[in-house]
Amino acid sequence: MISEREQAAFEAGIKLGALYHQWVGTPIAPETADAVETTIEKSVRLQPFVEEVRVRLDRSLMKPHSKGYSELSGMMFRVQITTRVGNASCRAVLSPRGDYPLMEILEPE
Amino acid sequence: MISEREQAAFEAGIKLGALYHQWVGTPIAPETADAVETTIEKSVRLQPFVEEVRVRLDRSLMKPHSKGYSELSGMMFRVQITTRVGNASCRAVLSPRGDYPLMEILEPE
Amino acid sequence: MISEREQAAFEAGIKLGALYHQWVGTPIAPETADAVETTIEKSVRLQPFVEEVRVRLDRSLMKPHSKGYSELSGMMFRVQITTRVGNASCRAVLSPRGDYPLMEILEPE
Amino acid sequence: MISEREQAAFEAGIKLGALYHQWVGTPIAPETADAVETTIEKSVRLQPFVEEVRVRLDRSLMKPHSKGYSELSGMMFRVQITTRVGNASCRAVLSPRGDYPLMEILEPE
Repeated sequence: MISEREQAAFEAGIKLGALYHQWVGTPIAPETADAVETTIEKSVRLQPFVEEVRVRLDRSLMKPHSKGYSELSGMMFRVQITTRVGNASCRAVLSPRGDYPLMEILEPE
Repeated sequence: MISEREQAAFEAGIKLGALYHQWVGTPIAPETADAVETTIEKSVRLQPFVEEVRVRLDRSLMKPHSKGYSELSGMMFRVQITTRVGNASCRAVLSPRGDYPLMEILEPE
Repeated sequence: MISEREQAAFEAGIKLGALYHQWVGTPIAPETADAVETTIEKSVRLQPFVEEVRVRLDRSLMKPHSKGYSELSGMMFRVQITTRVGNASCRAVLSPRGDYPLMEILEPE
Repeated sequence: MISEREQAAFEAGIKLGALYHQWVGTPIAPETADAVETTIEKSVRLQPFVEEVRVRLDRSLMKPHSKGYSELSGMMFRVQITTRVGNASCRAVLSPRGDYPLMEILEPE
């Protein structure tokens, strides 16, 4: 039998994998980062089982190349998401760990 | 020799091809379409040679499937862009033509 | 405590969400579908915790529009993936359910 | 009046912008780069006005991060494309220029 906790973890994984690959590559700069963060949050909240999502993009990594803007890269993401399936919820994050944008489940509080 | 008009046309093509493939697949609904339009416009304006861009997404095509939201598809786009290289500018559009999301250069006014 | 089964489910979700949003929108036709399937499989297998992945794309949905080709859409995907974390594994699928490309965990055999 | 040369330049821009944003972010490693190159080429050739396209991905930039694989980034692309509209053709490239993945039209030979 698949537990509700497993299903909530599966749904959290879907959302993090999806938003990462949907948005990586978007032209971005510190002055547009607010709009991109808000739009990602609104898009993710449309999807089923999402209770809460918070997206912050690390502006210190938006070092403009010679053309004056940057691209949204995996290492810029600081995302926290909570999914709920039945009575179970899952909190998970996407954030840098060393040189890798890591997705992981947080221990329940 | 490559003319400035050719370069402006090339730049307009880049921006339309880029935004299409960057944003297709984004979860969307009529209530989030405003934010997505604005964020696409801001992202495109960061890129070189863009003088003006206007993005409208056809809400009548946002027919929610059984899960209650839709995905941004090519046929939803109504985009007008103006690029400038030197003294030449190019106005181009992305909008539906029959069953196809067509990109084309507009005749100079 | 987070169980290995929950982690395996989370990883399966990541991979399905990621491949969906990475590849949706790719130009495709029945004669290129083999190459796209194989390349998606190879890309997914590079990622951690993936034990097996099989991707089939429904050629009957590749109805060329007036320009003679189609775009990879969510409803074309038939994906089965197995992830493993420690002693736990998770089998999950992405395939159409009604009008929706559904991702779900399969019951253990 | 829009010339055929301008239209060919526009079409070349569309294809380069499109492939860049479709494929950036794909998991990649030297051992899968062949398959990705071929699949991008096949996908681009399905699109109208494409006479020839050649995609090479710089394996020296595929420095695996700690998880053992890399992501397709803009600086990896070496693409040459030829589009044709009527009697005019346009050759254009996507390749690194300094710290920037530059798209530009090549002078006719």
